[in-house]
Amino acid sequence: MDSAEFTQAEYSDRLTAVRAAMAIAGLEVLVVSDPSNMAWITGYDGWSFYVHQAVIVGPSGAPLWWGREMDAAGALRTVWMPDDCVLGYDDTYVQNPQKHPMETLTQALAERGWQAAQVGVEMDNYYYSAKAHAVLAKDLRLQDATGLVNWQRAVKSAAEIERMRRAARIVESMHQTILDVAQPGLPKNILVAEILRSSALGAGGHWGDYPAIVPLTPSGMDATAPHLTWDDRPMQRGEAHFFEIAGVYRRYHCPQSRTLFFGEPPAQYRRAEEAVQEASEAALQQARPGNLCEDIANAFNAALNKHGFSKDSRCGYSIGLSYPPDWGERTLSLRRGDKTVLTPGMCFHFMPALWLDDGGIEITEPLLITETGVEKFCTLPGSLFVQG
Amino acid sequence: MDSAEFTQAEYSDRLTAVRAAMAIAGLEVLVVSDPSNMAWITGYDGWSFYVHQAVIVGPSGAPLWWGREMDAAGALRTVWMPDDCVLGYDDTYVQNPQKHPMETLTQALAERGWQAAQVGVEMDNYYYSAKAHAVLAKDLRLQDATGLVNWQRAVKSAAEIERMRRAARIVESMHQTILDVAQPGLPKNILVAEILRSSALGAGGHWGDYPAIVPLTPSGMDATAPHLTWDDRPMQRGEAHFFEIAGVYRRYHCPQSRTLFFGEPPAQYRRAEEAVQEASEAALQQARPGNLCEDIANAFNAALNKHGFSKDSRCGYSIGLSYPPDWGERTLSLRRGDKTVLTPGMCFHFMPALWLDDGGIEITEPLLITETGVEKFCTLPGSLFVQG
Repeated sequence: MDSAEFTQAEYSDRLTAVRAAMAIAGLEVLVVSDPSNMAWITGYDGWSFYVHQAVIVGPSGAPLWWGREMDAAGALRTVWMPDDCVLGYDDTYVQNPQKHPMETLTQALAERGWQAAQVGVEMDNYYYSAKAHAVLAKDLRLQDATGLVNWQRAVKSAAEIERMRRAARIVESMHQTILDVAQPGLPKNILVAEILRSSALGAGGHWGDYPAIVPLTPSGMDATAPHLTWDDRPMQRGEAHFFEIAGVYRRYHCPQSRTLFFGEPPAQYRRAEEAVQEASEAALQQARPGNLCEDIANAFNAALNKHGFSKDSRCGYSIGLSYPPDWGERTLSLRRGDKTVLTPGMCFHFMPALWLDDGGIEITEPLLITETGVEKFCTLPGSLFVQG
Repeated sequence: MDSAEFTQAEYSDRLTAVRAAMAIAGLEVLVVSDPSNMAWITGYDGWSFYVHQAVIVGPSGAPLWWGREMDAAGALRTVWMPDDCVLGYDDTYVQNPQKHPMETLTQALAERGWQAAQVGVEMDNYYYSAKAHAVLAKDLRLQDATGLVNWQRAVKSAAEIERMRRAARIVESMHQTILDVAQPGLPKNILVAEILRSSALGAGGHWGDYPAIVPLTPSGMDATAPHLTWDDRPMQRGEAHFFEIAGVYRRYHCPQSRTLFFGEPPAQYRRAEEAVQEASEAALQQARPGNLCEDIANAFNAALNKHGFSKDSRCGYSIGLSYPPDWGERTLSLRRGDKTVLTPGMCFHFMPALWLDDGGIEITEPLLITETGVEKFCTLPGSLFVQG
């Protein structure tokens, strides 16, 4: 079997972990709306999260997939559960102010005798709207379970790590494409076209999946703003060009950012590069089992401050299985106050980005916590890219 | 000026329309979370909707942009309002269970004397979570305003229609890429790589933006399920291959689907093609100002049924400005019961897709309601694609 396939035993382990967390939280039933959590529990994979859908974990037995009738066909083809665990609601419920799909979810729970159960919902995960909550709350006893499943995903299995490794080969290939194609005067969208192509072609014999965030590629002053997308302005000398991109293998993300200059970067950028490199080295020395997430951040910030730079935002977050709009797992953050114990199998996007007054610098690394320390998923040099 | 640019007068008209709708709904303040609505009101354009953000329309004056401090830089570079209308919250609020960004939104409203105002929120639009609502509801008088802004977007301006036309050239170019590259035995992801490349390269001298939905390209039995994404399985003879894709120019979407066969399609597909073509023609005859949305659907379904086929789902929806996860506007639907009066400037994705037991057929058209009838945005033939 392909070492990146998930066995039935792995899905069973995941379900057991979720039910253990439910027991601690006092939940009998869990309604999971986050597409990443839905996929992790059931294997479901489709671009249908723009309509209401969920996975329901009851007190026992297989989970249920619930969604639009049209998408039940996709569920039947992707989930591991028997066909009678897939429930579809009819199309008149779709984007129709006269009624709401969640009415059919309430009914599905009632039919299983769960109308009086304590039901967990992901109040601050994606795609669980305030309206969805209001409709369910009319008839059910709801309790916030935001992050409950996300936290079970923090430590990756061997098969998940294999997917991350394949994604790492893809992001390396995407960065090579950038180095091959980028040149002064090239409209940004033409470069992005080649990056997108590279992301789907894949690498190392493995195809590329779509990323949870499109390539973020700002230049110059736009690079003071981290989340602007591309247009057709030509790339210029004398500007920093950001490339925040991810390789993706079967929904597992390996994000990695680099910063490109045509010609020698200004002295300020070389100072920032040196600061980031030394602070990153100090940070990674703290990345080992038993230490805390904040140990990495504190070491990073202390070393960065010594160089006269500072960073207000977190310097990393948990990564793995993701759907748009975010490739972070929204659990662990590398920042002061995060007391989570680092554990082998945890994966992070270490993100020591600096935004300067006239641009910025992003040299980031996807990381795996190992039994003894930390491993970089990628082999790309940790420096500014300089060409021409 | 580029005829696809939005003037300050156009933004003022949009704000006036939103305030008129607010007055009818009895709202003094409106909190807009849907990224498409945020962009339509302010021009904001960034991939930051994975954290809490909003546009606030108060009783008078320019709207406010509110979001993560890191993204305020992107707002300053994209919105039309003065800099003091851009409000950022600090990074410790990001994905931190100890506190919630919406606390800072409440504070921003209070600072402007709006703490007792009737405040509209988009309870069933994307990215407004149940938790966000619960936090705001602690201190504010909230009222559901789902769709309020979306409905103002239904009739497009000349500049918006120009963006749609440019997007139409791009989707045509993407379909041409499919015809150029697709062949039996080609792994699907390699074809998708070329489609993605084509989408960003653009067409007709205009660059391509990212779509709100990735290319949906199922084959064979997977095509019975409309929203599955790609993998690396080779394309086969004797299967239907779906291509549901959109060209995008500066966030405006022109979606169009076609179905490809290698070799002569089975007789059932030719019958379905004929049924869809005749039903589409009947439908489009009803597409003119003064008629209702349901007139199109009823004419379509009646003609389709005559051919022995039926379709349970709506046969179209409003399109225009969009962000992930959906390129529909979530207002008008072409289905029985939708009594909206067709008006010049409305844009639809006419979507007469049929899903059959062993595959499906998608031959769809982006449409513009004109002063006298209807115009197809694209010139692609409305038939099955057959090759080889």
